[in-house]
Order: sequence, then structure tokens, then C-alpha cells
Amino acid sequence: MIYCAPNFDQSEKKLLVESAGSIRVFFEDEIPDNKQFETFLSATICFGNVSRDWLEQTENLKWIQLESVGFGEYQNLKNAESFIMTNLKGFFSVPVAETTLAGILAFYRGTDGFAIHKHRKTWHGAALRPGLRLLQGARVLILGGGHIGRQIKKLLSAFDVQLTIYDRYQPDADISSISDLDGVIPEVNILICCLPETKETKGLLDRSRLNKLKTDALLVNVGRGSAIDEKALIQLLMEQKIGGCVLDVTQQEPIPYDHPLWMCPNTLLTQHTGGGWINENSGKINFFLENLKRFNQGNELISIVDTEKGY
Amino acid sequence: MIYCAPNFDQSEKKLLVESAGSIRVFFEDEIPDNKQFETFLSATICFGNVSRDWLEQTENLKWIQLESVGFGEYQNLKNAESFIMTNLKGFFSVPVAETTLAGILAFYRGTDGFAIHKHRKTWHGAALRPGLRLLQGARVLILGGGHIGRQIKKLLSAFDVQLTIYDRYQPDADISSISDLDGVIPEVNILICCLPETKETKGLLDRSRLNKLKTDALLVNVGRGSAIDEKALIQLLMEQKIGGCVLDVTQQEPIPYDHPLWMCPNTLLTQHTGGGWINENSGKINFFLENLKRFNQGNELISIVDTEKGY
Repeated sequence: MIYCAPNFDQSEKKLLVESAGSIRVFFEDEIPDNKQFETFLSATICFGNVSRDWLEQTENLKWIQLESVGFGEYQNLKNAESFIMTNLKGFFSVPVAETTLAGILAFYRGTDGFAIHKHRKTWHGAALRPGLRLLQGARVLILGGGHIGRQIKKLLSAFDVQLTIYDRYQPDADISSISDLDGVIPEVNILICCLPETKETKGLLDRSRLNKLKTDALLVNVGRGSAIDEKALIQLLMEQKIGGCVLDVTQQEPIPYDHPLWMCPNTLLTQHTGGGWINENSGKINFFLENLKRFNQGNELISIVDTEKGY
Repeated sequence: MIYCAPNFDQSEKKLLVESAGSIRVFFEDEIPDNKQFETFLSATICFGNVSRDWLEQTENLKWIQLESVGFGEYQNLKNAESFIMTNLKGFFSVPVAETTLAGILAFYRGTDGFAIHKHRKTWHGAALRPGLRLLQGARVLILGGGHIGRQIKKLLSAFDVQLTIYDRYQPDADISSISDLDGVIPEVNILICCLPETKETKGLLDRSRLNKLKTDALLVNVGRGSAIDEKALIQLLMEQKIGGCVLDVTQQEPIPYDHPLWMCPNTLLTQHTGGGWINENSGKINFFLENLKRFNQGNELISIVDTEKGY
């Protein structure tokens, strides 16, 4: 049987049940709270992100399909060897890359400001023109050459930017050493971070690296909040020693009402929606169903993760 | 001598004066108001957009370099044959195309909304995800296959959209007849208008064509405000019978405080800044200087316009 944790609508549930054939599907939101854990324990397949605590108590589970790319909360599970874990690697690359471009262009072409001007019904017109920038010719550095980084590269290709990709492991990355990275950071107009959370990426953009950015540089983070020293970033933004930032991910989510990021100038907070789109749920279900077919046929699943390595 | 109408800063003026060599340059903002017209009358070259009335009284003028692409205000000049008029055709295509993409992505990825959420310090997060859309796979129609339309096509190429270009005269346009246009309008997700103002384009997007748009279609106008029946558009927006719009150009500019466009939902007003960027002035000067060199050498100028045809 399949334990399904995400909340789906009726038509999405119908698609799952029909495609699962003879395998019964239990939907968490249809099970009384006090029966959920026990139902989960009897499942051989789990679709969705259940608690780490639950996962460590499973005995029947053979495969869990996460509904995320990140799986930091499942590192060093004591029974990691007893089941397969797959994530949605690559699944969010198109929406996240489009949000990245949206954020950069909002900043370069002033569109987030126009939303505020409209809200206030104020015309600034020609006076704003010298404040706008062109992406054409900009020097861009992407941290992370995985699915998302490569999709961002694809979208940027039409804009004639000067692009550098940093990745420690991808053989086609432009730079792969920390010393090369430190050489490029001071040169870039736009720094895009789409790194997974690993021991090596936590705090990679620390205070000293952030301080090396140009005073008009734009920082974009669509990877993990932990990659950036947020306190140092907030200080740079507040003192306007950096051009601005687009943050899809932050260290605290939701960002609390009194958090200083809400007050930072030249800051666009996309509230961890970068991977979302209108057909996200049906896309996730189709991803799961493809893996279910492979699982039933005894074939290798797509996007098996190694919880030790972290990607 | 050269009469220079735009306001430039000292370094820009210096570049102009030095490059003009032995030809004297008079800057309008350095001439007392009551001497400006008389100075203009003695010039053989004019850089910038002076009044139609002034232009019709010239006797010495041999060439005017406009600082715009549009020249609708100079149609049917009585002395049009007595001097050459050049515009900045192509000059704004890169910034306007980038603003077009910025506007579309702001709408599809919700970034203009995030500016407002930040202003109010409100977290919506995952609840917003099903409201976001992907440009990938969208059906896009561009009206106008000139410099701007082609640059937008170039930028869109990386996003894997389904693109149709309508142009009456460009041989490489996908469709060129009004009946084909009327067939495509009901099918598109995004309609981008970058038409010049001519007899044929005025009011092309009239009420009946606007009414044929899908209820979730996005309309973008970076051409001329006169192409659209604005009253009909406002009604569609107010009744939410259209997805939204991005307007760089409008029939009235500046848009007055009590204008209904400020109140329309799903509307991004970029306040005719689409062609602007930080180096816009030096770019215009370099364009003028290239033409000045050609003028001095007796060669054909770049971007000579035909005030009768309108492009």
C-alpha cells in the first residue's frame, strides 16, 4: 500500500488511485490524526515528506518518494539502508530558473518599483530611466551547476551576458576551486546561488565573500538559505553597500513580521515560491507515477538520493 | 553649427563638443529662453526633438537627428523635403525587449505582487504557488516584426515558447494578414504589441479583438498607446475578463492621478521607461556622432525616416 502525505484535490487523488491499480492508496488528509502513524507504518511505499521520527520507525517501507528536492532533514537516518529514497531532482528547475530571471529583470528594469508606484498612483516616468540597467553584457556568476544552474544558464544565453559557472564536481563547470571563486566574486554584476545544502555549501557566502561583492552587485539565492551569512547580507543591504538581492530562500521561513529582511531596501522576497506553478501538483504525481511504474517492474528509480552526501 | 536640444551632463557635452571638431555646438539649456529659437534657425544640424512649429520655419537646416524612434508629431511637415530626418531606430530594442520580458515574468512569476507583500510585511508563501505560471510552453503572439519584435523573439527563444510574429511588411513574419491575425488572437496566452504608429496600426487592438483574447491572456504594449482601445481594455481588466496587462505606453502620459488605469487589477505600468538605461544618453550621443561622421563625409545616414509612411 501507498501512504500519500501531500494534500491533493479530488481529481489529483483520482489520477493517483487509478494509476496505482491494485495497490491501495491512503491519503493522510482522509485518515484521523490518531491513525495516521499506524497507517504509515504498514505502508511499503510513501509519497511525500513525513517526519524524520516516523521514518526511523518504519519496518515495512521499501521506497519513499519525497515531494521536494531538499532532504536535509533526513541526513544520517539510523535505518537509511533499509529503504530507497527518491527526490524531485530537476523537477523545479524550469520554474526556479524563470523566477530567477523574473527577479533579476525586476531589479534591472525596475518592475518591482513600478508595482509600488502604481499602488501609490505616482508617475515618475523619464526620471527613472537612468536608474535602469541592461542585463545585456552583465557579468554573471552561478554557484551550482546542477539542474537549476544549467536551466538558468539556458535562459540567460539569449541575453548575451558574460557567464561563469562555479561547481566543485560538474566537469563542465567554468571554475571549481574556492580560490578561483574568490577571484571572480569581486568582478560580477550578478551572483546567483543555486547550491544544495551540504557541509561544503553551508555558509559559503560568508561575511568576507559578501564584502567582496561590487557595491552595485545583485545577489540572488534560489538554492538554500543556509548558504548565506544572512546577518552580514542584511547589514550590506541596510548600508547600501550592495546593489540588492532576490531571495527565494531564507534561514527562517515564514519570515516573521519583525524580521529585518522586510525592511531591507532593494530586496525582493519571493517567499519560497520559485518552484511553484499552476500544474505543480499534477507534475509531482506524474513524477511519482513514473517511479511507481519502475518500482513495480523492478527497474532502477529516477532520482535516488544519497542522504550521506546530501545531493 | 549644431543645435543640441536634449539636456546632457558636462561629460556628455564634452564628448559631443570634442567629437564635433570645428563645428560649433549650441546647447539649448545654456541659451536664454528668448534666444533659443533664433539660435535654432541658424543651425544646419539639429540633435534632439524640437517643436513641429520650429521645424516648419527652418531655412538652414540640412539634417535633424531625433532622440526618439517615434516621430508621429512630425508627419506632413510642409517643408519635409528640405532636410533629412533620422531617428534612433533599433536603439531602444535591447532595453525595451528586456522590459518586455521583465513585465511578462513579473506577471507569470508573481514578482510585482511580492513587492507589495514586502511593503506590507506579509508572508503568503506556498499558498501563492498554484497562482504562478510558466512561460515555458506559452503561446505568444508578437505584433510588429521590427527591431524590437525581433529582439523580443531572441530573448523568448531560450524559454521554449510557441511564437507567432505578425507583420504586414516583414517577409520573415509568420503571419501578415488581418484574417490570420484574427485567427491567432483567441489562441494566445501572451500578446505583445510593439507596433509603430501608422494609419494601419492606430486602434488595431479594438474592442472586438480585445474581447477575443482568452480570459487569462496577458497583453503587453511596448509600441504606441494608440494601437489599443484603452477604454475597452480598462473594462476587460476591471471585470477580470483578461488575465492582465503590462503597459509601457498609454494614450495619456503622464497618467493623471485619477485615471482608471491606476486602479486596474493585474496591471503593471512601466511608465514609458522601457527604452531607458543607465547609459542611454551616451548611447544616443554615440549614435548621433556616427551619423555626424557620415554627414561630414557625404555618406548616407543611418535610420533616415519617411514622415509620410510613418516608419
